[in-house]
Amino acid sequence: MVRLGFDIGGTAIKAGVLDCSMNIVSKKMTAFTREAGFKSIIRKMYEIAMEMLSDNSLEKADVMSVGIAVAGGVDTEKGVSVKACNLGFVNVPLRAEMERYFPGVPVRVINDADAATLAELKKGALKGCKNAIMLTIGTGIGGGVVLDGKLFTGGLGHGTEPGHAALSLGGPLCSCGNQGCVETLCSATWLATEGKADAKDVIGRAKDGDPTSQRILTEYIENLSTALASLTAILDPEAIALGGGVSLAGDILFSPLREKVWQKSFFKHSYKIVPATLGNDAGIVGAALAE
Amino acid sequence: MVRLGFDIGGTAIKAGVLDCSMNIVSKKMTAFTREAGFKSIIRKMYEIAMEMLSDNSLEKADVMSVGIAVAGGVDTEKGVSVKACNLGFVNVPLRAEMERYFPGVPVRVINDADAATLAELKKGALKGCKNAIMLTIGTGIGGGVVLDGKLFTGGLGHGTEPGHAALSLGGPLCSCGNQGCVETLCSATWLATEGKADAKDVIGRAKDGDPTSQRILTEYIENLSTALASLTAILDPEAIALGGGVSLAGDILFSPLREKVWQKSFFKHSYKIVPATLGNDAGIVGAALAE
Repeated sequence: MVRLGFDIGGTAIKAGVLDCSMNIVSKKMTAFTREAGFKSIIRKMYEIAMEMLSDNSLEKADVMSVGIAVAGGVDTEKGVSVKACNLGFVNVPLRAEMERYFPGVPVRVINDADAATLAELKKGALKGCKNAIMLTIGTGIGGGVVLDGKLFTGGLGHGTEPGHAALSLGGPLCSCGNQGCVETLCSATWLATEGKADAKDVIGRAKDGDPTSQRILTEYIENLSTALASLTAILDPEAIALGGGVSLAGDILFSPLREKVWQKSFFKHSYKIVPATLGNDAGIVGAALAE
Repeated sequence: MVRLGFDIGGTAIKAGVLDCSMNIVSKKMTAFTREAGFKSIIRKMYEIAMEMLSDNSLEKADVMSVGIAVAGGVDTEKGVSVKACNLGFVNVPLRAEMERYFPGVPVRVINDADAATLAELKKGALKGCKNAIMLTIGTGIGGGVVLDGKLFTGGLGHGTEPGHAALSLGGPLCSCGNQGCVETLCSATWLATEGKADAKDVIGRAKDGDPTSQRILTEYIENLSTALASLTAILDPEAIALGGGVSLAGDILFSPLREKVWQKSFFKHSYKIVPATLGNDAGIVGAALAE
């Protein structure tokens, strides 16, 4: 028996077949256009799943569950993508549509940042944690919170968005409509805008000794350390995992970041801050893990 | 059988005798000087407790537990006040000293903001909540978090300090050493400093139509609503209770505050924001409730 995990990104779908131990047996990626509509997207997902199953001498009957990770607001009870701006989805019944292809198989829909958090909790950097935070640093900042060993989806079930906590009152306008959210000063976009280059390149140049890039990275670490220290004042977590491209920066980011978070933390604790370990697979693993 | 609850403030001790339903049977207040030392403070607490017991025809043998609320860091396991700046306490064994007067009776020590949160959860504005936040707005801002129906004391047990979450990067210096914490822009002290008067008077003048005071209050609500909306992005709570003198302001504060938090909340939910109901009794009730 296997599980299928899908991660619907802005322009491509990642798909994976996972065994009972939640290890990836097979994975595939396929591009799509949002104009095609959600029914066409689900059909594509089904098609690449069938290809992967066939490649591994498996059949449709071997599929014990299907999980779908998608950005934005999700109604996990109903299996509906309530709102995904990057896809133009509003109240899209992903589960109902997928069930047409896999009748009788449980289908779950989960927010992509929650999926990444769940994946890191069960198989990655947060394994064994009771209380932890995951931030995925990309164009924006997605996040998830682990409480009591389980994914926390908000007291009222709306979710958690630590990337939209306050950082700079009256600061830059955020995609959410507020000003100065963590996302506005700590995303890869901030690094790219300040450095007039790809975030990865800005970090690369800083490593190579370019003073302008180093200054930008120092300011970035100032911003991010304040954001993380703020989260420690509220949640006092066992660990914070950082995912996304920026988290691959290594010591040039993590060493000063840990030092600064310690300095700024109310409880003067040396919090564990680690790179996420599942990289691009986090979405499909988390989707397959969704319950 | 009764329980005793004490709340050690900066210059006075509040003490209460509570019945089995956690209603206050009797309460008393007494001043002290921190120079007298903690042994003298505990003796004073014992003396007023004995007076209250006697006034109610009760005996020492009727006391089934003693709780002590104190500011700052507390080791609840050991019953020690780790650090209370306002009292000059460092590693003060409050429980051990109190046990000398009440041998065989369980004595608990709890952080004062946690005590207030516990009191509001069990007997006040947060009754029945599974996930909620309490902020006590005074000279500084104390806070507590309720998760899964219980007082949350941090993932690592250090506590929670939502008053020291970030609000204004590079903003005013905070008592904790950071800059721009929620406390620096949302405390009663901020209102008093801006209005060059008592926070209560600034609010009173705003009610009376004084334009300067109204402008200050509007800015205060801007600050506080951003701080509360930020907390909703992380915890998505059922309710937020505000305690302290400022919480007595009534509609002039709460109406625009609720509106602004709704506008700024990531999940566009109309969060329940209510005044705390136990007022000055929250500390003694929460101390008696500590487990």
